[in-house]
Amino acid sequence: MPIVTFLPSYRKAEVEFGATILDAAQRAGLNINVVCGGQGKCGKCIVYRKSGRVAFERQQYSRFFSHGELEKGALLACEAFVNGDLEIVVPESSLIQEQKILIEGLDLTTAFRPSVMKYHVTLSPPTLEDPSPDLTRLLDGLEKVHGPTTDLIFVPLGALRSVPQILRDGNWDVTATVALMPPGRFWLIDLEEGDTSQRLYAAAIDLGSTTVVACIWDLVKGKVVGIASNYNRQISCGEDILSRVNFARKNGLSKLQTLATESINAALTAAANNAGIDRDDIYEVMVAGNTVMTHMLLGIDPAYMIAEPYVPVMRRSINTEAASIGIFVAKNAGLFVFPGVSDYIGGDIVADVLACRMGEREEISLMIDIGTNFEVVLGNNEWMFSCAGAAGPALEGGEVLFGMRANPGAIEKVTIDPDTLKPTYSTINQVKPKGICGSGLIDLLAELLTACVIDRNGLIDTTIENPRVRKGEYFAEYVVVWKEEAGTEKDIVITQNDIKNLIMSKASVLGACTTLMKVAGITHEEIDTIYFSGGFGNYLNKQSAITIGLIPEVPLDQIKNIGNGALMGANIALINRDQRRTLELIARNIAYIELNAEPSFMDEYTQSSFLPHTDLSLFPNVSTLLDRCRLNHPHHSLNGGV
Amino acid sequence: MPIVTFLPSYRKAEVEFGATILDAAQRAGLNINVVCGGQGKCGKCIVYRKSGRVAFERQQYSRFFSHGELEKGALLACEAFVNGDLEIVVPESSLIQEQKILIEGLDLTTAFRPSVMKYHVTLSPPTLEDPSPDLTRLLDGLEKVHGPTTDLIFVPLGALRSVPQILRDGNWDVTATVALMPPGRFWLIDLEEGDTSQRLYAAAIDLGSTTVVACIWDLVKGKVVGIASNYNRQISCGEDILSRVNFARKNGLSKLQTLATESINAALTAAANNAGIDRDDIYEVMVAGNTVMTHMLLGIDPAYMIAEPYVPVMRRSINTEAASIGIFVAKNAGLFVFPGVSDYIGGDIVADVLACRMGEREEISLMIDIGTNFEVVLGNNEWMFSCAGAAGPALEGGEVLFGMRANPGAIEKVTIDPDTLKPTYSTINQVKPKGICGSGLIDLLAELLTACVIDRNGLIDTTIENPRVRKGEYFAEYVVVWKEEAGTEKDIVITQNDIKNLIMSKASVLGACTTLMKVAGITHEEIDTIYFSGGFGNYLNKQSAITIGLIPEVPLDQIKNIGNGALMGANIALINRDQRRTLELIARNIAYIELNAEPSFMDEYTQSSFLPHTDLSLFPNVSTLLDRCRLNHPHHSLNGGV
Repeated sequence: MPIVTFLPSYRKAEVEFGATILDAAQRAGLNINVVCGGQGKCGKCIVYRKSGRVAFERQQYSRFFSHGELEKGALLACEAFVNGDLEIVVPESSLIQEQKILIEGLDLTTAFRPSVMKYHVTLSPPTLEDPSPDLTRLLDGLEKVHGPTTDLIFVPLGALRSVPQILRDGNWDVTATVALMPPGRFWLIDLEEGDTSQRLYAAAIDLGSTTVVACIWDLVKGKVVGIASNYNRQISCGEDILSRVNFARKNGLSKLQTLATESINAALTAAANNAGIDRDDIYEVMVAGNTVMTHMLLGIDPAYMIAEPYVPVMRRSINTEAASIGIFVAKNAGLFVFPGVSDYIGGDIVADVLACRMGEREEISLMIDIGTNFEVVLGNNEWMFSCAGAAGPALEGGEVLFGMRANPGAIEKVTIDPDTLKPTYSTINQVKPKGICGSGLIDLLAELLTACVIDRNGLIDTTIENPRVRKGEYFAEYVVVWKEEAGTEKDIVITQNDIKNLIMSKASVLGACTTLMKVAGITHEEIDTIYFSGGFGNYLNKQSAITIGLIPEVPLDQIKNIGNGALMGANIALINRDQRRTLELIARNIAYIELNAEPSFMDEYTQSSFLPHTDLSLFPNVSTLLDRCRLNHPHHSLNGGV
Repeated sequence: MPIVTFLPSYRKAEVEFGATILDAAQRAGLNINVVCGGQGKCGKCIVYRKSGRVAFERQQYSRFFSHGELEKGALLACEAFVNGDLEIVVPESSLIQEQKILIEGLDLTTAFRPSVMKYHVTLSPPTLEDPSPDLTRLLDGLEKVHGPTTDLIFVPLGALRSVPQILRDGNWDVTATVALMPPGRFWLIDLEEGDTSQRLYAAAIDLGSTTVVACIWDLVKGKVVGIASNYNRQISCGEDILSRVNFARKNGLSKLQTLATESINAALTAAANNAGIDRDDIYEVMVAGNTVMTHMLLGIDPAYMIAEPYVPVMRRSINTEAASIGIFVAKNAGLFVFPGVSDYIGGDIVADVLACRMGEREEISLMIDIGTNFEVVLGNNEWMFSCAGAAGPALEGGEVLFGMRANPGAIEKVTIDPDTLKPTYSTINQVKPKGICGSGLIDLLAELLTACVIDRNGLIDTTIENPRVRKGEYFAEYVVVWKEEAGTEKDIVITQNDIKNLIMSKASVLGACTTLMKVAGITHEEIDTIYFSGGFGNYLNKQSAITIGLIPEVPLDQIKNIGNGALMGANIALINRDQRRTLELIARNIAYIELNAEPSFMDEYTQSSFLPHTDLSLFPNVSTLLDRCRLNHPHHSLNGGV
C-alpha cells in the first residue's frame, strides 16, 4: 500500500490506493482543518504535493488557489486521492490550531450524594445451620452497612454469576459496588475481593463540538482529582456541526460515533493519568453535550435535525452502560447523558441552567451561551423560555478581516484614547499581535463608538483626520496596529465591513434576548442577573458588551460568568444524584421559542442593529455615556496621531 | 479427523483423536444413557466396537461385563477414546427410552394480564409547527392507547436507535411492543412498521431435569396455541442432577448451560411449529425449574449446592434478556425465571404452589411432588412449611427387579383377586408386559396387603399355597405375570427385596409429611386437600397410595392431581404479571425444614415403615379395610391357581 509522508512533521501513514490525502492525514494523526466536513467546499485543507502521484475526480485549478499556487503543488487534501507513495507538505495554516481551554474553579455548593457507592462487608461463611444462599448472605451483609433497601437492589446476571467465586476467593471479605443504573434502580454492578472501598471514582464530561473535557472525582474524598481536555476528534470530519451531520449522512454514523467515544476515552485517560488513578476504577460517566453531539455519541441518527422540519430523535436523558457505546471504564459502569430541550437547546444548555441555578430562584435570570451559534434562556423557578440562533462567526473572529480565535497573538483587550484615537491593547500570551479575537473586537466596537469614530449605525466617520482612520482598499477602516508593531505583513485593521458583520452578530443576540423578554412580558429592569456560559464570557469586557448592545443593560455587578457551565452542570449531576431529577424537570420546563417562527423577532433584530439599540431608553447608562463622549470629542485632530 | 459411525442408525460424527465415544455419540445426536454423568460408574453406556481402533485409560474387563461380552467388543462409551475411524454398535438398552409426557388440560382461572403488549399507533408526521422529537411523538401517540404512564416507559438505547428509521419507513404508522423488563419497569422493546399488533406470543417453559416442555400463548387471543416437549439434552451429561453437577465441576458449566438453552430452543421451535407461528414473535419466556436447573440455565455455578453446607447462589427470581443466555426469540424479549426457596425446593415447587393455589386459601393443603427425590409443602395463606428428601428410585421402578419407567409395556394398574391371588393388570400402550412402573408397584403393594399376601411389615407369607407365591432364587416373591404371557424371558415377579425398597421409599414420603404436620402442629383431619404434582400422580391409584401409607389418609375426593404444576405455574405467571409478585411472596413465605436436622424425622420415618403406619388410628379407613380383608381371606388355597 502507498505510504504518505507529511512534512514538516515527517508523520507517515500507509493507506490504500484511492484514499484521500485527508484520510491519510487523519491516519497519521494530523488534525487538518476541514470546516466543510471534507466536501471540497471550504478550501481550508490546502496542502502541497512535494513528490509522488495523486489523482483527482475533478479539476482543481482556480477554485481556491492561483495558478502560482497550483504550480507549487497546491491541492485540497479532501479531494486528492493517493495514487502511489507521496510526500505532502502541510502548511501550519491548514492545521487546527491549539486552543486555549478555559475551565473556571468549580464552585459547587451541591450536596455530595453520588449515585455510586462501595461497601466493604465481612460475612460469616455458610454453615449447615445457616445455609442461606450466597446472594442472600451478601445482601444481608450489605443491608447492615447500606440501609434497609437492599431488598430492592437489582442484581444483573453478569454480577450474579461472579458472586459465589468472589465470595470464596475473598474468604467472605468483599467490597460491593452499588450504583443507580437504568432504568433507575440500584444495581449491584461489581464485587471485588477484600477492601477496595477507597478506590471509587466518577467522571463528568463536557462533550463540546470542539473540545472534550473530562473531570474526575474521587467519590470517597469528595473532590476533583484530575481534569484534562482534548480535541473532539470529530473535527477531522468537519469543523462545524452541520458538516459533521453531512459527513454522517454520506459516510455513515459509526465513524463519528467512534470518534466521539475515542475523544472521551482519551480525555478520561489523560484525566486519570493526571489524577494518578486507574481508569478501571471510574464507576460512572456523566456527559453533557449539545443535541447533535449526544445523538452522535449514542449512535442515534442526527440527520433529521438538519433538514425541515428539524426533528431530533429524543430529548430525554439517556442512562445506559458505558461499555455499550464503547466508553471503557469500570466493568458495568453506567453512563448518564443529559436531557435536552430541542435540536438547538441541548444538554449543554440544560447543564448551564443547572450550573447557574437560575431554575431554582425566584429572581429572573438571563443565561447566554455565545459561539458561532448562541443560545439564550430566560426565566426563574416558575417558567423558562429559550431560543437559539446563528450569531455568525464574527463574534469569534470569523468573517472579520483580522479576526482570529482566542489563540496566542490575538488581541483580547482594547481601549482607545478618545483624544488621540491611539489604542492600548493586550494579546494572548503577550506575543506580537496577529489579529483580534472576539473579546478584542467587542472592546474595539465599544471604544470606536465612545470615541465617536463610528456612529450608532456603525458607520466610520471618514471625515476624522487621523492616520488611523482611512479609506482602505474596499472599505473605510481603522488601524488597530501598524504592521511594524504587528506579527503580520500588513497593518491590523477593522473595516466598515467587519463592523457591519459584528453588528449583525450582536443584533442577533440582543434581538433574541429582547424577543424572549417580550414573549415573557418582562423588562430589562426585571432581570436580576445575566449569566455568560462558555469560553466567550471569560475575557469579555462586560461594559463593552453593554455599550455595543450585545446584551440588555443591567448593572455590571449583575453580569456573571459561569465559565464552562456544561462541565459544571455535569459535575453537579455526577456528585448529587437527586439533581438528575432536577435537570429532567429543567429540560421539561424550558419552553423553546423558534425565532424564525416568532413574528416579533425580525422587528427586535432590526431595532438591535443599532449601537446599542434604536431605543436608547433601554440603555440609560450607555445613553449617558454616549452623550458625554459626543460632548467631549465632537472632533478628532491629527495632533493625536500614531 | 476420525469418523465414528454408529450402528444400526448409521449416524456419523467426525471427532478429534482422543474424544470419547460418548462425545462422538452426542455429536451424532444419539442420547446415550449416562446415569453417572460419564464417570464410568454406572455401566449404562455399553456399546460394541465393530471395527476400528479405540484407546482406554484403564482396563475395562470384568467391571461391567463378562469375558464373553468383552470378546464381542463391549466397552463403556464414556471410557473409550477414539483412536481412528470406528464402527460402533449401540444396543437399544444403552439409549435413553422415549418417555410418555403427561400434560393435563390447563385449567387456568387467573386474570389475563400479560406483561407484554403491542400497540399499533398512527402518528402525524412532524412539521415546522410541530417539530417535537421522534421519541416524544411516538410516546405521545402511545399514551393515547396505552394510558397515562407512557412517561415512565424506559427506552433502551438499542430500541431508541431504530426509532427514526422505522417511523419514517413505516410512514408514521407503526407497532410498538412494550414489556415489563428488568429490573421491573416497562420498556419499549421493539418497534415495527405497520400494524403487527396481532402477532404477539409468549412461552412458558417447564425446565425439568429429564424433560423440557414449552407452551406457547397467543397473547392477543389469550389462549394456548402450541405445546411441545423434548428431552433435556443435559441427560447426555448425566441422568441425575448430582451427576450433572459433577460433570460441570469436571468439565465446566458452559456445556450444561448450552445444553439447557438448546433444549429450550428446541422445545420452543417445536411448539412454534405446532402453533404455526414464528419464534421471532415470542416476546417473553417464563421458566420454572428446580434450583440446580435454573442455576445451570443462567450460567450460575451450582457446585456449592452438592457439598456441605449445601448453599445455592440465589433463590430470588431472575429477570434478564432471553438472548443474553442464548434463548433466541424476539429481539430484546425478556426472560423470567421462577424464584426458589432452597437448594431442594426450587422454582418448580413454587410453581406447583402457585398452580394449586394453596397459598391463597385458608384451608390447609399438602402438596407432594414425587420423583427420585420428593418435595412436600404443607400450609395455607398464612404459613407454609416445606421439606425434601430422597425417595429412592423404587417408586419410579428403580431398585426393583422388574421395575421400569412409565414406558410402553409397563404394568401401570394391578388388582389381585383375594381368593385366587390372580392379578388383573393393564400395561401402557396395551402391549405385552415387560415390567412394572411406579403406579403399578403401588397398586401391587396395596393389593398384596389387602389380599394378605404380605403383612403390615411387608413380609410375604410364604406359607400360602399358591404357585404365585414362591421362594425365588434369593428372596421370596410373588409372580405378577408368567413368562408365557410376558414380553420377557422370565416370569415378572415382585420380590421381598423389592417390597423392602418400596416400603423404604414410601416411608420417606409419609415420614416427611407427618414431620411437617408435627412441625406445624396439625393432624391429618385438618388437611383439606392433598395435591400431587408431576407425572407421578397421573396414573396413581389414590386408594392404593393411602392403603400402603404413601400419604396421610384423607377422603379420596380430597386428593387432587395438578399434573405438570411447574408448567401450569409458569403459565399463570406468564399470562398474569401480578402473579409474579405473588410468587415472590410464596417463595419468601415457605419455610424450609431440613429433615436431616429435624429430630422428629427419624421417628416419623420408622413409624411410616409399616403398611400403612404403626399407628392405625391415623388410617381409620385403611384399618377397617384390613380388618375386613383378614376376616374374609385368612388363607389362600391352591384352587385359585394360575
